[in-house]
Amino acid sequence: MIDFPDLNEIVSSTPSKIVMLVIDGLGGLPHPDTGISELEAANIPNLNALARKSACGLTTPVLPGIAPGSGPGHLGLFGYDPVKYLIGRGVLEALGIGVELGEKDIAIRGNFCTLDQEGRISDRRAGRLSSDEAIPLCNELNSINIPGVEISVYPVKDYRLALVLRGEGLTDQVSETDPGRLGLPPVECHELGEYGRKTAEVVNTFLVETRKILGNHPKANTVLLRGFSSLPDLPSMADRYCLNPAAIAAYPMYRGLASLVGMRVIDTGTEFSQELETLGDNFADHDFFYIHYKPADAAGEDGDFSAKVKALETLDGYLPELMALSPDVLIVAGDHATPSILASHSWHPVPFLINSKLTVGEGIKAFNEKDCAMGSIGQISATHLMLLALANGDKLTKFGP
Amino acid sequence: MIDFPDLNEIVSSTPSKIVMLVIDGLGGLPHPDTGISELEAANIPNLNALARKSACGLTTPVLPGIAPGSGPGHLGLFGYDPVKYLIGRGVLEALGIGVELGEKDIAIRGNFCTLDQEGRISDRRAGRLSSDEAIPLCNELNSINIPGVEISVYPVKDYRLALVLRGEGLTDQVSETDPGRLGLPPVECHELGEYGRKTAEVVNTFLVETRKILGNHPKANTVLLRGFSSLPDLPSMADRYCLNPAAIAAYPMYRGLASLVGMRVIDTGTEFSQELETLGDNFADHDFFYIHYKPADAAGEDGDFSAKVKALETLDGYLPELMALSPDVLIVAGDHATPSILASHSWHPVPFLINSKLTVGEGIKAFNEKDCAMGSIGQISATHLMLLALANGDKLTKFGP
Repeated sequence: MIDFPDLNEIVSSTPSKIVMLVIDGLGGLPHPDTGISELEAANIPNLNALARKSACGLTTPVLPGIAPGSGPGHLGLFGYDPVKYLIGRGVLEALGIGVELGEKDIAIRGNFCTLDQEGRISDRRAGRLSSDEAIPLCNELNSINIPGVEISVYPVKDYRLALVLRGEGLTDQVSETDPGRLGLPPVECHELGEYGRKTAEVVNTFLVETRKILGNHPKANTVLLRGFSSLPDLPSMADRYCLNPAAIAAYPMYRGLASLVGMRVIDTGTEFSQELETLGDNFADHDFFYIHYKPADAAGEDGDFSAKVKALETLDGYLPELMALSPDVLIVAGDHATPSILASHSWHPVPFLINSKLTVGEGIKAFNEKDCAMGSIGQISATHLMLLALANGDKLTKFGP
Repeated sequence: MIDFPDLNEIVSSTPSKIVMLVIDGLGGLPHPDTGISELEAANIPNLNALARKSACGLTTPVLPGIAPGSGPGHLGLFGYDPVKYLIGRGVLEALGIGVELGEKDIAIRGNFCTLDQEGRISDRRAGRLSSDEAIPLCNELNSINIPGVEISVYPVKDYRLALVLRGEGLTDQVSETDPGRLGLPPVECHELGEYGRKTAEVVNTFLVETRKILGNHPKANTVLLRGFSSLPDLPSMADRYCLNPAAIAAYPMYRGLASLVGMRVIDTGTEFSQELETLGDNFADHDFFYIHYKPADAAGEDGDFSAKVKALETLDGYLPELMALSPDVLIVAGDHATPSILASHSWHPVPFLINSKLTVGEGIKAFNEKDCAMGSIGQISATHLMLLALANGDKLTKFGP
């Protein structure tokens, strides 16, 4: 958690409502042809007007140079040191589809793939197997029976699945079976450290049974397993911040992440417009809302500068609807930068704004990387954003005499 | 202490003299009508000229969002992590009036108050009892005798007093007797945790005796007790920095704070002009001086924008006298922001400047929040300011081979 052990002495519940809008992959970099970033190129009058009456700055998601995944990126925004609190990919995948994991369960990311006749991987995504094709296969794999272990296979999306192992003496300290590229056979699972033997045997037995069941399928004749992990022990946002927090996110992984830090995850649709509707419907019931906007990251990852500009403009168009709810504190932030010119997550500081009755215009003219760098809050660790949220929500008293 | 354990290997005493001028509550926020802060509105030609030939930046007193009291704010400036080193309010109050506290003494803040005929608090400040009225009452309370405990009652100012308990087996882990508002009776003192019973009994006996003595006083018929605390174990600035440090502050609490970190506290008057005189008179005898200017904070706390502007202008007028002493290193900093528009301490970063023969103009045009944000030092933790002071004073050698 944030490095401030005395928080419990100065934080209290107040009626104010905080909304943290996370624009996934918000930050960008200037396009070499124009010298301006996606945010600068976008026509975002609502965000710019909001920035003019807000306190602005830049967050460093982890450390300079460290490009975070969505897990660490979000944990930081929620005030959890992402270097200390690590969440396995298997756990994220399972939580994201609503699997309730027990303390000792081992969650694993899987995907159907195609092996050629020599047993080498010829298609890592089994011809982009559809969900319709994958669901019955997952049901078949669910019938695999290994004594002493409860095995559950869940379809995730398309060719992706989650495998959960439950039983005594299991550990996530075993190796992945995905060799990482085409033309190689899957790798046997083996223990990492001294406690993994039983788990490795279970995994290898599961894979043998899987091949028996899928053997004749034209595309999906085995699965690759990665991201072995178990639940991390995360303090609850509710306890730590005296909040009653809720999460609204269309994508499974972000819902999983939010449930892990103790937010109530509210059912919503697949579009941001539906997320906003959900926010409005539940606005009376919580004092903290995390709401997630994905398309900016997706466009950035595709390396599509103008699609990212458009995704930001679309979000800007939704802002008045969000502001009509009149949250006492509105934060617009990003979990990391996804500059289109890099077509990937990056380490660059990410613009943010905080708007509340305590913020006034500070000379910032627009919401982008360059202007926010001159904001009154300066460049801070993402893990400190929640402190600012609480302070702006009148939920913190003075520290010390 | 600052997070640099090897400081002792690179620090040494040199003839250079450092002056750290702390303008209490220095930082501000733009007035909504004008968009400019107190520092920007003030006519402060001397500070601005000094900033133009200094290295500038912003300090974060504790963490973003955390508004510190004067204690943590000053500890940070002296290089002590304010999250790690906590000072109780009773200790600060007692030290501020020159009480020499022993290691095991329990210091308590008290104030005279008025109880109505039903024993409920009708005036928390006993009609703002004057010092002239309070001093004889404190003397009477000093006669209270409880076996095994030495009891000392000291007048502080007006209706405020300090109570010090000395004896074996005492602890500060007991509850306060102030219920915090009118219309309620004082609360009995009880132990917090398992070791407080004796102390609670002593405190409750003291209060019974106090009522017997004060019972018929028209205004001050009892006292409320808060801030039970004992001396924290702080390393000495002298040892840590190889300095011979001195403090010049008109207000008791800041003198107490300085003595706690091992500064010699020099007697001075109640006005800043007298503090400057004291500085001049003692300039030959020390190599580090902390000098405190209070009025900016007081005006900010009152929410009086123009009074804070005037307080800054008054300080600016004194600057030439300070600079005439030609300190080798002159730091102008603040313990925290006290924006007039918030009428309270705040968490916002605070402007600072460091002037020495090693600093040159860096394009900063004025001493205020926006310009200092673009200074060469950037935004730093307040706890690192002393390192910059030592470095500019030629007191640090290279770290590592």
